[in-house]
Amino acid sequence: MSNAKRFTLPQRYAGTKESVWTEYIQMAIDYKPLNLGQGFPDYPPPQYIMDTLSKVGNGPDYMLHQYTRGFGHPRLVNALAKLYSKLIGREINERTEVLTTCGAYEALFSAIMGHTEVGDEVIIIEPFYDCYEPMVKYAGGIARFIPLKPKPVEGRLLTSADWVLDKAELEGLFNSKTKMIILNTPNNPLGKVFTEQELTHIADLCKKWNVLCVSDEVYEWMVYKPHKHIRIATLPGMWERTITIGSAGKTFSVTGWKVGWAYGPADLMVNLQMIHQNSVYTGVTPIQEATAIGFEKEMERLGSEECYFVTLPKELQAKRDFMTKFLVDVGMRPTIPDGGYFMIADWTPLESQVDLSSEKDEYKDYKFTKWMTKNVGLQGIPPSAFYSSPDKHLAEKFVRYCFFKKDENLQKAADILDKWKSSRQ
Amino acid sequence: MSNAKRFTLPQRYAGTKESVWTEYIQMAIDYKPLNLGQGFPDYPPPQYIMDTLSKVGNGPDYMLHQYTRGFGHPRLVNALAKLYSKLIGREINERTEVLTTCGAYEALFSAIMGHTEVGDEVIIIEPFYDCYEPMVKYAGGIARFIPLKPKPVEGRLLTSADWVLDKAELEGLFNSKTKMIILNTPNNPLGKVFTEQELTHIADLCKKWNVLCVSDEVYEWMVYKPHKHIRIATLPGMWERTITIGSAGKTFSVTGWKVGWAYGPADLMVNLQMIHQNSVYTGVTPIQEATAIGFEKEMERLGSEECYFVTLPKELQAKRDFMTKFLVDVGMRPTIPDGGYFMIADWTPLESQVDLSSEKDEYKDYKFTKWMTKNVGLQGIPPSAFYSSPDKHLAEKFVRYCFFKKDENLQKAADILDKWKSSRQ
Repeated sequence: MSNAKRFTLPQRYAGTKESVWTEYIQMAIDYKPLNLGQGFPDYPPPQYIMDTLSKVGNGPDYMLHQYTRGFGHPRLVNALAKLYSKLIGREINERTEVLTTCGAYEALFSAIMGHTEVGDEVIIIEPFYDCYEPMVKYAGGIARFIPLKPKPVEGRLLTSADWVLDKAELEGLFNSKTKMIILNTPNNPLGKVFTEQELTHIADLCKKWNVLCVSDEVYEWMVYKPHKHIRIATLPGMWERTITIGSAGKTFSVTGWKVGWAYGPADLMVNLQMIHQNSVYTGVTPIQEATAIGFEKEMERLGSEECYFVTLPKELQAKRDFMTKFLVDVGMRPTIPDGGYFMIADWTPLESQVDLSSEKDEYKDYKFTKWMTKNVGLQGIPPSAFYSSPDKHLAEKFVRYCFFKKDENLQKAADILDKWKSSRQ
Repeated sequence: MSNAKRFTLPQRYAGTKESVWTEYIQMAIDYKPLNLGQGFPDYPPPQYIMDTLSKVGNGPDYMLHQYTRGFGHPRLVNALAKLYSKLIGREINERTEVLTTCGAYEALFSAIMGHTEVGDEVIIIEPFYDCYEPMVKYAGGIARFIPLKPKPVEGRLLTSADWVLDKAELEGLFNSKTKMIILNTPNNPLGKVFTEQELTHIADLCKKWNVLCVSDEVYEWMVYKPHKHIRIATLPGMWERTITIGSAGKTFSVTGWKVGWAYGPADLMVNLQMIHQNSVYTGVTPIQEATAIGFEKEMERLGSEECYFVTLPKELQAKRDFMTKFLVDVGMRPTIPDGGYFMIADWTPLESQVDLSSEKDEYKDYKFTKWMTKNVGLQGIPPSAFYSSPDKHLAEKFVRYCFFKKDENLQKAADILDKWKSSRQ
C-alpha cells in the first residue's frame, strides 16, 4: 500500500478540509487588501490588560511559568465563578462547575465530543460558527440544521432581530435521538441577540425532549442598546441542562490569548473535563493569571461607566453605525446587528458591477469576496462558510464584514468603496 | 431516563478516569509534603525567557495579542524549522512540515487521533507517559503494550540503559494491523535514552510493516554525558514515517507556557493539522512569539558553553547525582537515568518500615507514595500509573521522583529521609 493511502485521514474525519480562514488569511497576505475579514481588532486591547501580562511575565511569582491545575488555574476559575454566580443568580462551584480551555474553541470541542454519542443528533442553527459542524462529525454525531431567515421588511434596513427561526420547523427537528442543540447568542455572523421569547421556545423544547443546550456566548458583552444579553442557563429548568461557553479573547479584545471556559452543572461538566484531560490537559498559566487579574479589576467596577464591559459595546456601536452608512452608500443592503462585531450585507445590488466569472468557486459569495479582495482591495468573508452544504445557497448573496477596526481603517474601507463607486459611474 | 444516564460519557470513552495527577496534586495541597512529584522546576526559568514574555506583553507590536496563524505562529514555525533542519540534516518546510500546538500534549493528541483508524493497533512501550493509552482509546485504536525490563546487574546500581525491550517480544507485536508505535526518548519516567542500535531495531520493524513512528522527544535536551540523543527521524528511511514531538515547556523550563510542536513530512502532518484545526484551531500568540525569540537566542549560541541546551543538562546532572546518593543512603535502589529529570527507585528494601495496610489502593506503589506523603512528608509518583493494567504489577516496587528542584529542596528531601531513617533505628 502506498504511504498516501496507508496514512490517510481516518474514515471518521473524511471530507475534513482546510477551513475558510486558512484560505482567506493566505489571500490577505498575498493581496494585502484592507482586511475586514477576521474577527479581531486591529488596534490595541486595554493598556492595563497588556500591562498585566507583562507584569506576570517577569513578576515575583516565577511559579506562574509552570503547570497549573488542569481543569483551570485556581485564580481564574475563582474569578469566573464569582462573576457568573452574580450574572446567573446562583452559586457556581469554581472547582466542579467551571473548566478553562484553550480558547472557547476547545470548550466547544470538549462539550461536543464529551456529550455526543455515535448516532446522536445535534441541532445547529444557521448561520453557525464554522467549527460546530466538523466537531459534531468528529464525535460521530449527526448534525441537523435549521436556518434563521429574514422576515420581509418594508422601507427600512433589516436588523438581526428580523432573522428568525420557523417555530414549527424547529419543533420538527427535535426527536428522541436529539442529544444537543448548539445556540450562539449573540450570533456570529448575524449579530442576532436571541430574545427571551425565542430562548424560552428553545428551552421548552430542550426540556420536553431532555436535550442538552450548549450555549456559545462569547459575544456576551457586545450587545447594543436597547438589546440585552440573556443567558439561557437562567431560564427555569435550564441550568441543569446547559453548558455555557465564554471567551477572554472576546471579553478583553485579546483573541490571541486563547483563554476560554465552560460552566454548567458538575454532572455535565465532568464529560468536558475528561475530553480536556485527554487532549490538552491544562491551559497556559501566565495567560490565565493575567485573565484572572483582568476579571478582578472589571468586577470591582462592574456596572460603572468605566467598566470595559460598558465602554467596549459603546465603542463598537459607533463603528457599527459608521459601517452601516458606508455599506448603504455604496449600494449594499446591510443587516444591522444587535450584538457581536460582524455585519452581514446583501451585495447583490452591485452584481452587475463585478465580474464573478473570473473566480472558480462554487458559491457566489466566495466569488464576490475574492473578486473584491483582488480588484477593489477590500476583504470580507463569505457567509456560506457558516451554512451546511444544502443550505449554502441561502448565504450566497451576503458578505460578512468585521467592524472591530480602528476608525481610520473603517474610513479607508468607506473611501475604497466610494472610489470604486465613482469609478463605475 | 435520568439525567445521570442520559448525559453520561459516550461509550467510546468508557472507563476514563481522573488522571494520577489530579489525585496527587490534590494530596500535595492537602498534606503539604516536600513535593518531588510533578515534573517541573521549583525555581525560576532563565531570566531572559521571563523578560521576553514580559516585553512581548506590552511591546510595540500590539497585534501580538490577536489570533495568529492556526498551524503555527509564523515566527515560531520559522525558528523551529531552522533549528530542526540543522539537527535533522534536511530542509524542513516551516509551513507544511511543522505544527505548533497547545503543549506537546496536544501534539500527541493530534498525531494519535489523526493517524489511528478504528481497530488499528498502536504499540506503546512501558513505562509510558500516561496520556498515550486514553488517547489511543479515544481514537478507537487498540493499544498493544511491551515493557522495558531491567537486566540483572551485579555490584552496581541499575542505570536506565539496563532497562531493555525483549527483541523477539517486540517483533511479535508488529503485524498487518499495526499502524503506529509511540516512542519516548529520553523516556519518562525511566530516563532511558534509546541507543542507535535499539532505535535501528525499531526503525527496521517500522519499515518492514509500514508503520508510523510517533517519537515523543520532549526531553531531547536533557541527556547526560556520555549519552547522546538520537532522533529516530534521522535513521535511513525513517523521515517519511516519523512524526517527532517537542516541547517549549521542557526546552526552556516553562511547563506553564504549554507550547509544543510536531514536525514530519507534509503528507503525515496534514492529518495532525486537521485534528488541531477542529479541536483548538490556533495557539497563544504572545507565548509563541516569546518562545520564538527564545529559540532565536539559543540558535545564535548553539554549541557554545553558554547555550541553555548545554547549561541545563549540566545543572540537572549534578542534581541527579545528589538524588542518587540520598536515595541510596536511605536504603532505596535507584535506577540512574541517562536523560530526563525523573528517577525511578526501588523502595522495597524499606517495606518493613512502612505501614501499607493503612492505604486502600490496589497497587503497592500507590500505597507507598501515599503513606510517605502523609507520614514522612515526601511526595513521589507511583510509576504503575505509567503501565497498562495487566502490567502495573511490574511497577509496584518503584517510586518516581523528580530532581528538577532547587538544591535547597533536594537537601530538604535528603534531610527528611535521613531523619526518617534515624527515627527507625
